[in-house]
Amino acid sequence: MLDREQLAEALRAALEQEPPSFPADLFELRDADIVEVLNHLTVPEAAHALGHFPLPLAIRLCEQPELRRRPTILEQLEPAQAAAILEGLSSDDRAFVLRAMTPHGQHRMLPTLSAVVRAEVETLLRYPPKTAGGIMTTEFVTLDPAMTVQQALQHIRTVAAEKETIYACYVLEPGTDKLLGAVSLRDLLMADAATLLPAVMRKKPIAVTVRDTHDVVAKKISKYNLLAVPVLEDGGRVVGFVTVDDVIDLMVEDETDNALRMGAVEPGALDLPYMQTPFVEMVKKRATWLVVLFLGEMLTATAMGHFEDEIAKAVVLALFVPLIISSGGNSGSQASTLIIRAMALGEFRLTDWWKVARREILSGLALGTILGAIGFLRIALWSAFSDIYGPHWVLVALTVALSLIGVVTWGTISGSMLPLILRRLGADPATSSAPFVATLVDVTGLVIYFTVAFVVMHGTIL
Amino acid sequence: MLDREQLAEALRAALEQEPPSFPADLFELRDADIVEVLNHLTVPEAAHALGHFPLPLAIRLCEQPELRRRPTILEQLEPAQAAAILEGLSSDDRAFVLRAMTPHGQHRMLPTLSAVVRAEVETLLRYPPKTAGGIMTTEFVTLDPAMTVQQALQHIRTVAAEKETIYACYVLEPGTDKLLGAVSLRDLLMADAATLLPAVMRKKPIAVTVRDTHDVVAKKISKYNLLAVPVLEDGGRVVGFVTVDDVIDLMVEDETDNALRMGAVEPGALDLPYMQTPFVEMVKKRATWLVVLFLGEMLTATAMGHFEDEIAKAVVLALFVPLIISSGGNSGSQASTLIIRAMALGEFRLTDWWKVARREILSGLALGTILGAIGFLRIALWSAFSDIYGPHWVLVALTVALSLIGVVTWGTISGSMLPLILRRLGADPATSSAPFVATLVDVTGLVIYFTVAFVVMHGTIL
Repeated sequence: MLDREQLAEALRAALEQEPPSFPADLFELRDADIVEVLNHLTVPEAAHALGHFPLPLAIRLCEQPELRRRPTILEQLEPAQAAAILEGLSSDDRAFVLRAMTPHGQHRMLPTLSAVVRAEVETLLRYPPKTAGGIMTTEFVTLDPAMTVQQALQHIRTVAAEKETIYACYVLEPGTDKLLGAVSLRDLLMADAATLLPAVMRKKPIAVTVRDTHDVVAKKISKYNLLAVPVLEDGGRVVGFVTVDDVIDLMVEDETDNALRMGAVEPGALDLPYMQTPFVEMVKKRATWLVVLFLGEMLTATAMGHFEDEIAKAVVLALFVPLIISSGGNSGSQASTLIIRAMALGEFRLTDWWKVARREILSGLALGTILGAIGFLRIALWSAFSDIYGPHWVLVALTVALSLIGVVTWGTISGSMLPLILRRLGADPATSSAPFVATLVDVTGLVIYFTVAFVVMHGTIL
Repeated sequence: MLDREQLAEALRAALEQEPPSFPADLFELRDADIVEVLNHLTVPEAAHALGHFPLPLAIRLCEQPELRRRPTILEQLEPAQAAAILEGLSSDDRAFVLRAMTPHGQHRMLPTLSAVVRAEVETLLRYPPKTAGGIMTTEFVTLDPAMTVQQALQHIRTVAAEKETIYACYVLEPGTDKLLGAVSLRDLLMADAATLLPAVMRKKPIAVTVRDTHDVVAKKISKYNLLAVPVLEDGGRVVGFVTVDDVIDLMVEDETDNALRMGAVEPGALDLPYMQTPFVEMVKKRATWLVVLFLGEMLTATAMGHFEDEIAKAVVLALFVPLIISSGGNSGSQASTLIIRAMALGEFRLTDWWKVARREILSGLALGTILGAIGFLRIALWSAFSDIYGPHWVLVALTVALSLIGVVTWGTISGSMLPLILRRLGADPATSSAPFVATLVDVTGLVIYFTVAFVVMHGTIL
């Protein structure tokens, strides 16, 4: 069996003939594996391949969120081919793909769709992305409260082919589309055939509103172990559903995005596999974040510039600069992480900020004292066996120890309070805190350190 | 409606009476919400409450991975009560709970279980945790290839109550338990009642082996959009199944753990909600990581000690120390993140390390040149309007620019190669890289900076 890269190579070669004769190995793969092969191709190559694949396969491939550059690939297809694929996609994937197209692509594509599909797409596109409305699908099994279990099962059998899942079904009030209850296929199979649905359905099912963000949706599905969750408009009308599959895809995407941001990489920076990304493009995208952080960190040089005289008089002070600022940074990011997690789990309310602050101030003092004591001991120990820190080593050790208490306390306070402030301002604390905290704590850490040094050493070394 | 904390308070008050009269609001909650209330209690309180709840509710609550301290709570129950709950749990939850108990708890608990359940638990406990064998369940619908669709549906109806899911069913060879095929409930409902299973089942279904790690399992379920995946022993015998629910729980746990580690917090550090964790315990657990990082960063003081004379002669050098080392750190963590992600997606093989290295060396040089140029300009600009960097500012600017090229290139190389090395040694690069890279790059960055300074400034300032 050829590996992905070799298959991509074979596919590329096949596309140069007209009509292309695709490698036999390719169609023995599962859809998700063919997607990986397509990810190794350029956009025009992938579009060319999709255009020559059987339509049902092309549709299934375009339903995989793992297919990178889906919107661009579809834009590059012949309009008739693209329309045929779009018509075949489930409503949430169709909306996702169209949303991500260029305005030009959208305008070219929408008129090629059938009237029904176009109306539906236009409704879905009205909801913002990353909300329940923006990710929901409309292909779901809805049942009537007047049905018996047997009628419901019969109905499900008839419509099964077009629905995303048939395992979670919803009972809606006829006419108003209000949510009356939820019933799983399992409940239906186990219930007596003649029972009316209201007797087997679960009343007041968990639901979300169109405006709930996608992580609220993910959290509900994962917390209550659901297979799907209905999406309600104002007034309680059911307008769509989000499935557990969609939530997994969102979680994978979110986890990746967060990991990338923490690592100073802009999410979506690399739409192509690492090895296939053109060098210049990769450097451009990586440079952006590094430059932003660099500009922020330049403030440290400015801050230290103010203490040049002190450093000249006591060069020994410079030696501990990296240690001091990294301790502040580490304690700051530790506090941020804990607070962001506790907020995400709803462990306290924003109005409890003062209780949190008090706890973090005390934690910061305790942690700073621990690090300060270790720092003091380290300098004392080295000074016992060498003259490295000079005759005034006690003052040096005292400066380092007191600064560590100050810097760690300050890092802990700012690391814990910034997420609360960001949340209060409506920003997502998880993604925006880290670089802020780092720069803030580095600059203020230096000021604390040299101020402590001035006070401790005034009249002796300084 | 009372909130979680108030309900926990009410529950605590109720437990002081004998028999306790629980607040009515409590039992109107869904299981996942009652779990949140229990999480606000101490272990003895939660055990006391579980012991007084109706058994089916107690079982359902203990099946939620969100119930913190499950094993400890069960250990605190009367042995008979604990055994009743354990017997009711699904096999994967039972194994999880027993595995996490103290050896003492395990030895006390195992003999209280029925012979069948005990044999099954002992089999499951033989597999290491965090492998497919360690997280699988045995309650699954298995079908016989001689069955018709109608017989299969009838069988599913009969066993539905005891199985974790009935939506994914597997056809096993009678006698050998070899995996012949997979069939979804949807396929069964849509197929003709008289068809034999081999005609509707999907052959060669995706499977994992008992030894596959839990993230291999998670990746397969999410990539192929499965509801469950069968787990095979050597020889191909099916011994269990992992469901999509379990995978979501694992993903949530993993994402949390990774976020915590990146933020210098030991996962599992806070088993209790933030506000409920005793202060001393919290400080102890937070101090551990901070101290480890602090000890590593102490090397920076040692490294800088070697350059004390240079700093004394050119104090201006000290001003750029934080900027230089943070740039090295940022480029290192950026490179790590990209490489770890590309490895996770299987975008290159370990044997391609040299291609990756070449690409990263070039990227590092390019990124370093960009930051170096900005740094040079900044110093030139400031020097045009002030005397802050002295008469030799060109040398200072040159030193900073060249060092940035060196440090960023070195950061990029070590950040990208360390994950490859860790993977080669069998360690998980995602979790162990960050602190290593940080310390390594900080210390070596200082050496590069002062070496460059010595070369550039030798004979003039130094």
